Amino acid sequence: MAPFLDLPSRSGKPRQQGLTHVIDHGLSCAQVDGLVEVAGDAVDIVKLGWGTSLVTGNLAPKLTRYREHGIPVVLGGTLTELSIAQDRVDQMIAWLHELELDHVEISDGTIELPHEQKIALIRRLVAEGFTVLSEVGSKDDARIMAPYVWVDQIQRELEAGAWKVIAEARESGTAGIYRADGEVRMGLIDEIAHAIPPERLLFEAPQKAQQVWFLRRFGTEVSLGNIAPDDVLSLETLRLGLRSDTAAFALDRGKPA
Amino acid sequence: MAPFLDLPSRSGKPRQQGLTHVIDHGLSCAQVDGLVEVAGDAVDIVKLGWGTSLVTGNLAPKLTRYREHGIPVVLGGTLTELSIAQDRVDQMIAWLHELELDHVEISDGTIELPHEQKIALIRRLVAEGFTVLSEVGSKDDARIMAPYVWVDQIQRELEAGAWKVIAEARESGTAGIYRADGEVRMGLIDEIAHAIPPERLLFEAPQKAQQVWFLRRFGTEVSLGNIAPDDVLSLETLRLGLRSDTAAFALDRGKPA
Amino acid sequence: MAPFLDLPSRSGKPRQQGLTHVIDHGLSCAQVDGLVEVAGDAVDIVKLGWGTSLVTGNLAPKLTRYREHGIPVVLGGTLTELSIAQDRVDQMIAWLHELELDHVEISDGTIELPHEQKIALIRRLVAEGFTVLSEVGSKDDARIMAPYVWVDQIQRELEAGAWKVIAEARESGTAGIYRADGEVRMGLIDEIAHAIPPERLLFEAPQKAQQVWFLRRFGTEVSLGNIAPDDVLSLETLRLGLRSDTAAFALDRGKPA
Repeated sequence: MAPFLDLPSRSGKPRQQGLTHVIDHGLSCAQVDGLVEVAGDAVDIVKLGWGTSLVTGNLAPKLTRYREHGIPVVLGGTLTELSIAQDRVDQMIAWLHELELDHVEISDGTIELPHEQKIALIRRLVAEGFTVLSEVGSKDDARIMAPYVWVDQIQRELEAGAWKVIAEARESGTAGIYRADGEVRMGLIDEIAHAIPPERLLFEAPQKAQQVWFLRRFGTEVSLGNIAPDDVLSLETLRLGLRSDTAAFALDRGKPA
Repeated sequence: MAPFLDLPSRSGKPRQQGLTHVIDHGLSCAQVDGLVEVAGDAVDIVKLGWGTSLVTGNLAPKLTRYREHGIPVVLGGTLTELSIAQDRVDQMIAWLHELELDHVEISDGTIELPHEQKIALIRRLVAEGFTVLSEVGSKDDARIMAPYVWVDQIQRELEAGAWKVIAEARESGTAGIYRADGEVRMGLIDEIAHAIPPERLLFEAPQKAQQVWFLRRFGTEVSLGNIAPDDVLSLETLRLGLRSDTAAFALDRGKPA
Repeated sequence: MAPFLDLPSRSGKPRQQGLTHVIDHGLSCAQVDGLVEVAGDAVDIVKLGWGTSLVTGNLAPKLTRYREHGIPVVLGGTLTELSIAQDRVDQMIAWLHELELDHVEISDGTIELPHEQKIALIRRLVAEGFTVLSEVGSKDDARIMAPYVWVDQIQRELEAGAWKVIAEARESGTAGIYRADGEVRMGLIDEIAHAIPPERLLFEAPQKAQQVWFLRRFGTEVSLGNIAPDDVLSLETLRLGLRSDTAAFALDRGKPA
């Protein structure tokens, strides 16, 4: 890479920090190949958004394709929530085994789920060998939680064995850790960051301005989620100071002493 | 599909209701194949937007591709309007025959067209064997019609033999049945729905919030148009209650009695 | 093309005016082929946005692909600016030769660059045989320049040998010649157009409303830049009066005298 510029250092795959978590809301197999061709080294995990996995016409070949590229796949948390609501969690888990998926997302952005029940499900899935991404925050603007509740839920979900906790934003970046206009709830982020090691968190940040904000706040190796496939290369350049918004990461490097 | 959840029932192709009408504003043949791979069962008809059919470099092979996939194609209404304005309707019809297209859209969103003339053209094209989609509403914010005019025009166009009447929104969802900010003109929709059977209507709804509004208002089998190719799978999950916004369609199902 | 409508005349490639300058922010080789299949005749030059060329996984094969299609490629101006800031301009030029690129963009949208230094770099690169696109305007909302400064800088950069001068807008169309909400700074454009022949200018216009504004202001053969690959076909139809917004270009043609 970078044949003539000095750039910030960047961890390699498999990453424990600086993750880019991509949302696939309906890629064809050729598009998966294209994403890997362009920015495969920057794709750490792919989520098949909400319940698209049940409807997409190419589920089996697409999962095979991601597996061949060494990219883990997780199904959307809304699917888990519907399984809980319809009392079909066992069937969902059986289906995950059938699909040979090792990751699972557990959220309560859509349904009202007593937190004890969420914790119990995290524990069960961890015990069954899954890598669990749990998600905190509601998709509903009206269900705003106080910062101390965010912190408490995140801590308990990590203690229950979650690998990372995702901070909710929706695919649009207009809920959870953001206001309806997409602006970051900075006070909330400060309280979370004060209590939780950032490397345990994955911030959903679908909008470029949101990505820039988190990169400036936490540095190039912050983990960001719900990144659109077409934005993965852009995000990687933002991490490396190769785009105007974060050029400060690169501008002061490489000068003669 | 849905191996473990109970979902709303959904009609199959060829559909008379619950249509998804997709706008192709410049797909390559490979992208057409990708769309069909991902969500072909959900694509009822494709419109080659406005006058793109005259400029795109791949018209013949693309039409062949759609034909092989069993998906009917219609050219954008703006093309019909330009043909009317330049007094070339006969030539346009000859071209439709040459392209082996069975569907045609007749609109007056761009030009001012006396409604009698529009009705006459609908009758003529129906008599010549075409399946006619007529469109009501202007692309121009300043040309707002009273609801009773909408209802009258829709009724007369259906009586003239139109298969479906499309309610105009532009590709952006910011005109016709929407305000400039994309908000639904609810009173207008109420008046139309009061007078016209919803299964004869196709509401243009390019924005996700608009799709959600119509699905909640008319149910899972409402016909929606100007859907971007990348949004077809998402819309199908919205119809089936597999996305947070319409999860209510699925949440109350499948519970033990 | 246009088998039955009269349309505005349009220059062919290689164009000196009416250029469409496309921003590639991460296309796969298959997407490059798709772009050419759909609208290759309308793509005059492609920019690999900002520093994406240093990170994309397919740089060599993609450049080969564009070369085979006869489309010149230029790297983003931000890359040039980083090279200046890190005192690596010689290395950057060597890399351009290695990549066999004949075009180069010189901008100061990100860094503060004394204009004399910019002029000197333009002269040097012209002398070395490059086709230079220089860019005027800042990506930073706070660094607003008076119109007379725009005019002065554009004139001096053309005198220094720039092939075209690009008027900055960012990829989003929200800076430089636009206000933060995307509205055109009309007074600025008027002053520039009063002093500079429009065919020497390339206006960045990523949003459709911006494209429409410039087409109405300067006609079908205005040069526009930062066009997204998916929007190239749409822009070509706008140039030809085949979309509602510019239908006036075509509506008054072809009528019997």
